[in-house]
Amino acid sequence: MRVPASLLLTTALALSAAEPQMTARQVIERIKQSVGVPWSSDTVDTFKAGDPDTKVTGIATTFAATFDVLQRAAASGKNLIIAHEPTFYNHLDKLEEIPPGDPVLAGKRKFIDEHHLVVFRFHDHWHRRNPDGILEGMIGALGWSDYRSKTAPNLFVMPETTLDRLAASIRDKMRIKTMRVIGDPAMQLTRAALLPGAAGSRPQMELLERGDVDVLVIGETREWETVEYTRDAVSERRKKALIIMGHVPSEEAGMEECARWLKTVVPGIPVEYLPAGEPFLEAAVGCPAWIKAVRDVSR
Amino acid sequence: MRVPASLLLTTALALSAAEPQMTARQVIERIKQSVGVPWSSDTVDTFKAGDPDTKVTGIATTFAATFDVLQRAAASGKNLIIAHEPTFYNHLDKLEEIPPGDPVLAGKRKFIDEHHLVVFRFHDHWHRRNPDGILEGMIGALGWSDYRSKTAPNLFVMPETTLDRLAASIRDKMRIKTMRVIGDPAMQLTRAALLPGAAGSRPQMELLERGDVDVLVIGETREWETVEYTRDAVSERRKKALIIMGHVPSEEAGMEECARWLKTVVPGIPVEYLPAGEPFLEAAVGCPAWIKAVRDVSR
Repeated sequence: MRVPASLLLTTALALSAAEPQMTARQVIERIKQSVGVPWSSDTVDTFKAGDPDTKVTGIATTFAATFDVLQRAAASGKNLIIAHEPTFYNHLDKLEEIPPGDPVLAGKRKFIDEHHLVVFRFHDHWHRRNPDGILEGMIGALGWSDYRSKTAPNLFVMPETTLDRLAASIRDKMRIKTMRVIGDPAMQLTRAALLPGAAGSRPQMELLERGDVDVLVIGETREWETVEYTRDAVSERRKKALIIMGHVPSEEAGMEECARWLKTVVPGIPVEYLPAGEPFLEAAVGCPAWIKAVRDVSR
Repeated sequence: MRVPASLLLTTALALSAAEPQMTARQVIERIKQSVGVPWSSDTVDTFKAGDPDTKVTGIATTFAATFDVLQRAAASGKNLIIAHEPTFYNHLDKLEEIPPGDPVLAGKRKFIDEHHLVVFRFHDHWHRRNPDGILEGMIGALGWSDYRSKTAPNLFVMPETTLDRLAASIRDKMRIKTMRVIGDPAMQLTRAALLPGAAGSRPQMELLERGDVDVLVIGETREWETVEYTRDAVSERRKKALIIMGHVPSEEAGMEECARWLKTVVPGIPVEYLPAGEPFLEAAVGCPAWIKAVRDVSR
């Protein structure tokens, strides 16, 4: 009985007839042509691991090519991983910044080599796209499309709520385990700014000090920068608040958006979004899992 | 009836007889002479606000000269604030890094001026002191004195426990509202490394990869650095874990230690430790206050 094998062969032939199997380099060329903004040479959007001339069997988009994501990509036959964030634990993926002989790094590189994976970072240009691909994905996931302000793409005007309720709504929609909030929980608000990721304290402060922003929602910040700035603003009795979603929950949906877009860019190749997930344990936040059930009922 | 006034006068005279009232500059000179390590010219340990020639009525030590801490210091007659972290929202307290005309910064500077406060940062040399003043304060607050390893001052060997239990113990001792943990909650461990503050990913990774470290306890890290490194280590089935206390809870007790030390350095001046406190709301972690009572009973 050779039916399954011949069926596979037919599918493979059909695929190759439609489009010769592309290499990772060719896929990235297609992305460069399609992203809608000029490709910059000064960018972190480069190959981080693997051979760019590898024939692509499938693409996984993700927040970061974590060891776990690489395992899941390999298991599902996706050998090109398109990740938003670094693979090797620093912004420029400089291996020399990791302690020499580090076993975690060595283990990750070995897995990539053995499974012939290719990792490409897609950060700067996915943000630069108009509209910003990460922001679009996040607005959709948060359900904030109807709240878009006419002033700027990352400003929103929503029905009046309190800081506590807005924080709970974000936490529950994005299933965040370790969100952090600064401000008066009872503060009434309608105007929010959304700045996913770790954009830096200067742009974060510039949004917070705007007259048309009550609360700023971010991914990450150094605690001695925007965190202490907001704490002082609150102590000075200004109507301001900060919601820190965590880096992953604040951007991840933007790479799900990227998978949707890529399917239109390379229609012949299987594309799947693989969530990296929030890295932290729930128990760590002081609210064990069994408590959650009680909390959810009480809301 | 002039009794209260004359009483005040008598007290003031008695004080000045014991020691002429020192200026902030003279207090800092005394600290430089007493800290036990050479004073470096390349340091963030400088005056950040106020007139160094102000006569010191009292000293407040604190994690950071937040607006709230400044208010409490002024209310209790302490006009010299000795803070471990920046006052103006970036490492070098560079005002030009804050958006021009920022109202939060202006409000803080106005308060400092109106109350004739002086702010000095005491970071590098308090860490460099032998033993490290922050580490000593933290070891005492955590109750880890009996666990000190002979290998290095920031390594500890404790009775066998699990990651989950160690995290809960740290959280409860330091009353942390938003702690974050990476690892297997059931992991058995005895060997911990403690690196308060935001020491950077390189030293954090160097501790984590040591054969004699199961869990690293830190204050803060960029999420794409030590966080993703630890997540990969765990995915690679290495016996490693990371506990992120938050920057304030990871160092604050070290400035309480500083107050104890300062009382011996400038015995004629009132010295008080003013906690800055964790900046985040409890509700934000997904575990409202009313739930805590249930949890605490259940433990």
